Amino acid sequence: MNGGFFASRWVPCPPHVQDADAGLARGFRAAAVAAGIKPSGGIDVGLLVCDAPDVVSAARFTRSGVLAAPVVVCQEHAQLGALRVVAANAGNANAATGEAGLEVALAMQQAAADAVDVEADRVAVASTGVIGVPLDGELVAAGLAEAAGELHSSGDEEFTEAISTTDAFPKRASLSVTLPSGTVRLSAQAKGAGMIQPNFATMLCFVQTDAALERETAELLLSVCVKRSFDRISVDGQLSTNDTVILQCSGASGVHVAPESDDELALGEALDALLRMLAVMIVRDGEGSKRIGRVVVRGGDDEGVERAARAIANSPLVKCALHGADPNWGRIAQAVGAALPDSAPLSLVIAIEGITVCSDGAAADYDLAALNAAAAGVEIEYVIGLPGDGAETEVFFSDLSHEYVTINADYTT
Amino acid sequence: MNGGFFASRWVPCPPHVQDADAGLARGFRAAAVAAGIKPSGGIDVGLLVCDAPDVVSAARFTRSGVLAAPVVVCQEHAQLGALRVVAANAGNANAATGEAGLEVALAMQQAAADAVDVEADRVAVASTGVIGVPLDGELVAAGLAEAAGELHSSGDEEFTEAISTTDAFPKRASLSVTLPSGTVRLSAQAKGAGMIQPNFATMLCFVQTDAALERETAELLLSVCVKRSFDRISVDGQLSTNDTVILQCSGASGVHVAPESDDELALGEALDALLRMLAVMIVRDGEGSKRIGRVVVRGGDDEGVERAARAIANSPLVKCALHGADPNWGRIAQAVGAALPDSAPLSLVIAIEGITVCSDGAAADYDLAALNAAAAGVEIEYVIGLPGDGAETEVFFSDLSHEYVTINADYTT
Repeated sequence: MNGGFFASRWVPCPPHVQDADAGLARGFRAAAVAAGIKPSGGIDVGLLVCDAPDVVSAARFTRSGVLAAPVVVCQEHAQLGALRVVAANAGNANAATGEAGLEVALAMQQAAADAVDVEADRVAVASTGVIGVPLDGELVAAGLAEAAGELHSSGDEEFTEAISTTDAFPKRASLSVTLPSGTVRLSAQAKGAGMIQPNFATMLCFVQTDAALERETAELLLSVCVKRSFDRISVDGQLSTNDTVILQCSGASGVHVAPESDDELALGEALDALLRMLAVMIVRDGEGSKRIGRVVVRGGDDEGVERAARAIANSPLVKCALHGADPNWGRIAQAVGAALPDSAPLSLVIAIEGITVCSDGAAADYDLAALNAAAAGVEIEYVIGLPGDGAETEVFFSDLSHEYVTINADYTT
Repeated sequence: MNGGFFASRWVPCPPHVQDADAGLARGFRAAAVAAGIKPSGGIDVGLLVCDAPDVVSAARFTRSGVLAAPVVVCQEHAQLGALRVVAANAGNANAATGEAGLEVALAMQQAAADAVDVEADRVAVASTGVIGVPLDGELVAAGLAEAAGELHSSGDEEFTEAISTTDAFPKRASLSVTLPSGTVRLSAQAKGAGMIQPNFATMLCFVQTDAALERETAELLLSVCVKRSFDRISVDGQLSTNDTVILQCSGASGVHVAPESDDELALGEALDALLRMLAVMIVRDGEGSKRIGRVVVRGGDDEGVERAARAIANSPLVKCALHGADPNWGRIAQAVGAALPDSAPLSLVIAIEGITVCSDGAAADYDLAALNAAAAGVEIEYVIGLPGDGAETEVFFSDLSHEYVTINADYTT
């Protein structure tokens, strides 16, 4: 069954994966409360706990030069391969908050540890929200203590709310994955980044499975899948201060996924589809977004395809054209030319929705009516050919709309 | 006298420079006609001629990997150090037009040469307008022939019109420059780039002086001044396919500017101010632009300040904040962090209009009311301090407005 979660033609549901009822993978419980961080009074502090003391985990973080305090605390004060707990808040990113912010993040980690009685270094902390404003650590600690008393196995819905800021829709999944050795569960909760609110930092994603993995396997699968998902999206070209992705494996299913086994391959395919779909959902959640694009660049070398794909995905001209359903390939040619300076003459091929509009750097003979019709869809694919072969990459990106400007220009701190 | 041309606090009029009446530097004539390239029927073909056979010139072009045909023709078929003629058109950029486009550009060069009876390799060609559509060479040739019969010494106004597309105001200057050895004239005509019309390529700038320069001096002055002006602006981060800057020196004033002389220094200062003011005017002409910004980044190393300054200038979040008069420094911190990955913890200082809002990476103690008032001006200055010293750079940039989206999304090819 191709479930409702996989709602993009770019991310087909693997045959061995099924949408499950909501709920966390076995061995996990979560809860969330309104702790008073969000001005709206909404749910803003979440706690996620793995009941297995021998949990295996892996984590990935933003590489920004301006790291939020919770990211620093995770990297310097947590056992990233054995995380039992995630303590998260929305409404305040605890970023650009200096030494005081680090102390608050450490206190947040300790408060979560105390609330569920684990060592502090088994706790990851994550924050999202406004940058540069002190986070009230006492509110967070009180919220975590309250949440600890309410943990339950279907707490993923409220936990997702606790990490959301202006997300237009929840980004959550619960999947049943049939491996050769048995059936396991994958659950995940994510929130979008950028293009959503002016000074709201962060892409957060927390993934749980009840499969039993070696630490190296968890590390490998997360690393590869993040590279193919969250690393391949561009909302507005802004790298956040708080981006965090954590995978936790409880082993509660009793299904062991051995390294280099068919189980590993099948679980990897499922995790890949899960993270890619969440990444596409984040792109789709750009405020005012009407259409999303996927650009595939082939040819040249690895650096060239990466630069060209990013240049197209981040071009405000291309994004506006996408928004307006305008198959304006001149802007794409310009973006590629700018990304690859001193490479003229560039034998460029551009296809939009399978229609070749430019070949050998000049206009191709195409059916404009068919092109215009194709450009009016909600998912538009651009395929760019550079001279040579061997390299290929893709980037998913959102459009640029009036609403984006309204939110980001007319909103005042 | 601080003339009307120097209308930005960032580009003071040098004391030895005065606004002159309109008109070209001595030894130059120009004319322009409506040749039928622009759908509007407006003036679209211009011809600029230096009467001195021993003219000295210098030229700079876009480094885009997708070079427009006229740029290729200039680079491969013109004596860039001895250009007597500029033949230009608006309405069609002759870019992404393949081999056929190269032939049209060569024919355009030959038509101009025939019209004023010079060798073809003494003619530069330049085009601006739509990308990817064949340019009608016969219309251009007829226009050039007609213009050749109407050349006059105050033809700079109509020539400016012939290189304009959707420019909201003309970018033209005529300056009187007092050098130690005598008074010379600088005249210039420019057009804006990007953020103006979706698939309209090009920043063009043509400068004339009646000073007598060695070829090396012309080359040196243009090179240094372009680096400090057109290379330091960001409209929407898009490098054009057609950008062209040409300096021509007729020597008609009889004032010789010797290398490494005080004359050279004084002429260089005037040219620098001229090109910087034109560059600021191009930024100010972003469609819907309400405010423009100047970001100065100090500290770190050359690569770091360049990356940080570009990241800020090209950030849609920062541009929206500028448009909305929102002194939102969190977005600036985020842009710098993204530009300098793996550099955390970054001791960052941010000042907006002289008010320090962030020091050592965290919020400074500032007067929010004063900051909000300062952010409401039309020219906003951001000064960023990175750890270390030695490097410094600046970028001028425009804001991101509703009108930009309207023009670029709602306009259909």
